[in-house]
Amino acid sequence: MLQLIRAGRASTRAELVEVTGLARSTIVQRIDALLAHRLIYDAGGGASTGGRPSTVFAFHRDAGVVLAADLGATRCHLAVVNLGNEPLAELSADLSITEGPERVLGWVRDRFAELLTHAGRSAAEVRGIGIGVPGPVAFVTGQAVNPPIMPGWDGFSIPSWFTGSYQVPVLVDNDVNIMAIGEHWTHWRDIDHLLFVKAGTGIGCGIIANGAIHRGAQGAAGDIGHIQITDREDAVCRCGNIGCLEAVAGGGAMAQRLTRAGMAASNSRDVVRLVRGGSREATSMVRGAGREIGRVLAAAVNLFNPSVIVFGGDLAHAHEHLLAGVREEVYRRSLPLATRHLRILHSELDERAGIIGAAVMVIEHILAPAAVDRALLG
Amino acid sequence: MLQLIRAGRASTRAELVEVTGLARSTIVQRIDALLAHRLIYDAGGGASTGGRPSTVFAFHRDAGVVLAADLGATRCHLAVVNLGNEPLAELSADLSITEGPERVLGWVRDRFAELLTHAGRSAAEVRGIGIGVPGPVAFVTGQAVNPPIMPGWDGFSIPSWFTGSYQVPVLVDNDVNIMAIGEHWTHWRDIDHLLFVKAGTGIGCGIIANGAIHRGAQGAAGDIGHIQITDREDAVCRCGNIGCLEAVAGGGAMAQRLTRAGMAASNSRDVVRLVRGGSREATSMVRGAGREIGRVLAAAVNLFNPSVIVFGGDLAHAHEHLLAGVREEVYRRSLPLATRHLRILHSELDERAGIIGAAVMVIEHILAPAAVDRALLG
Repeated sequence: MLQLIRAGRASTRAELVEVTGLARSTIVQRIDALLAHRLIYDAGGGASTGGRPSTVFAFHRDAGVVLAADLGATRCHLAVVNLGNEPLAELSADLSITEGPERVLGWVRDRFAELLTHAGRSAAEVRGIGIGVPGPVAFVTGQAVNPPIMPGWDGFSIPSWFTGSYQVPVLVDNDVNIMAIGEHWTHWRDIDHLLFVKAGTGIGCGIIANGAIHRGAQGAAGDIGHIQITDREDAVCRCGNIGCLEAVAGGGAMAQRLTRAGMAASNSRDVVRLVRGGSREATSMVRGAGREIGRVLAAAVNLFNPSVIVFGGDLAHAHEHLLAGVREEVYRRSLPLATRHLRILHSELDERAGIIGAAVMVIEHILAPAAVDRALLG
Repeated sequence: MLQLIRAGRASTRAELVEVTGLARSTIVQRIDALLAHRLIYDAGGGASTGGRPSTVFAFHRDAGVVLAADLGATRCHLAVVNLGNEPLAELSADLSITEGPERVLGWVRDRFAELLTHAGRSAAEVRGIGIGVPGPVAFVTGQAVNPPIMPGWDGFSIPSWFTGSYQVPVLVDNDVNIMAIGEHWTHWRDIDHLLFVKAGTGIGCGIIANGAIHRGAQGAAGDIGHIQITDREDAVCRCGNIGCLEAVAGGGAMAQRLTRAGMAASNSRDVVRLVRGGSREATSMVRGAGREIGRVLAAAVNLFNPSVIVFGGDLAHAHEHLLAGVREEVYRRSLPLATRHLRILHSELDERAGIIGAAVMVIEHILAPAAVDRALLG
């Protein structure tokens, strides 16, 4: 019922009876419960077909707030949003995930408190928390699992850590998954099948299948950065294996190669800076990385047949060079049927995709029919 | 409601009121409509908690039949099943898809008529038809799209062809997709994410994501046979490209290589015959093909993170040699997190996976809530 009111498909008791087929007594009872929980409000009298006007109900976007954090390897983005996912306060800062869970999450908790104050909201109004981290996550438990670049986080329960401060659902997911959710929710809601590729220090992929994030059996889906693309012994990956896509086309690997060639670069942002500064070596390297990523995506396109591939992450800022390489390989190697209507483009949300997605993930969770039922009964 | 009765979750009017929250008057009306359409029947009085016993309703499996055909490149399987997917009559025969749609479908229609007679059912009892074909299909229209091994079928509307004989829904899908559906429905209903790989003359993959078949944006998903795995000029694929997986590890390609080495083989069944006969060349070749398929699947496992990979098709009959090669590469190259609980095994349904899946596809379609609603109102 709440979904129907949120989507604007029904707004009066009579319309709800008609659309749901539920008994009027059930509808009246539910409406009262939703009103009591302030999830809907009386938006005044509506047009009537005669007799007294019927009450129009609307979704109460400001009935609570959600805290969202997108924690990357070295940068983070935090936000307080309302239940309509409208930002009330935001913050971006440098923060190294390698400082470990206690320090990182302590910092996040303090900033959340400040952002709440800034937004004029209280901790009691928080209904859920969404966190993205740069590594594989067992979504059900909210624990990072063997995350290669997150020392100290393996098996750490992020949701449990927050229960001291907030007794609300805490959902944790891979940073690329929340970016895919954010991009899909904002620009591509009509598209069923989408891949979001984050190309930065590492390379990962978020998968939207049938309109929802596909996390796979262990929450490991989308880890294209560690697909082996070469047997070359010099392509040693930070995961310990040889020949991973990331060890060839990742920003970290490229920065190392540029440094060896005499150009100062320590990460993917430096690589992009060199490209923008006109360096031919860096430009050619990024285009080559695009082709390597494109070869992997060509296989992913044959397997998954998406309509859209969206690129985010630092390397996506290297003008069109990365995507030119990607397109070259995908359109050459994938099936004509699968590429006929395929679009490959940059993320418009850019840095904000993650916090938008983290918030969407939590809002959809707490407003899902089963969750609302539990809240109304509880 | 029909879903609840089919699943055994509710069988009396009172239970239906409780489970659905629908008004009793709505339930009574729906039950009457379902009874009138013979989709349920009165299974007698049930246990009562006092007072008169309540009527128990059960799903009427024999309220109609479904016709299913799995058309491979050179073999076909046909069946008449009831709405519980219990086979009433079956048939397997050699049939070349290259004879074109008119001849092939004419033959299928005649056999369907014979199977109906054999099962003691009439054409009027047919509620739907499911067809699998060995090529990409635009599922919405039921047309094959640029199918490489189906000359004359491109753009041919298979559903329209049947409307002269049967005015019922006709669903058409890729043969590997229906095999995946059949295998999932029979053995893996509790598993959300599964890949079904058919390795025969060609190589294809059916994807079950979140419990349902993933067809992708153009119905092209799962076409792993044309993922490019090598730049070797001699690996010319029947699709016209160079270096496709199929051109290296497909049964047709292996038969050609064995023939050049002096062993008579014209298709994947001949390759299997040689392996079973103890040929070292053929065995080593099949194991090598398993490794090539394994390399592609290692990437698919990183991308999609399934719990189970099931192998069907002729080459799966080459004892354990194919799967040994596959496992070698997948467990070596995929992420530990994604392979920790991954099972890779043979199809138990074997040749019957396709017709079972074609029938499931149609039964779920015609008994879906929206379809039943339309039928009850219409």
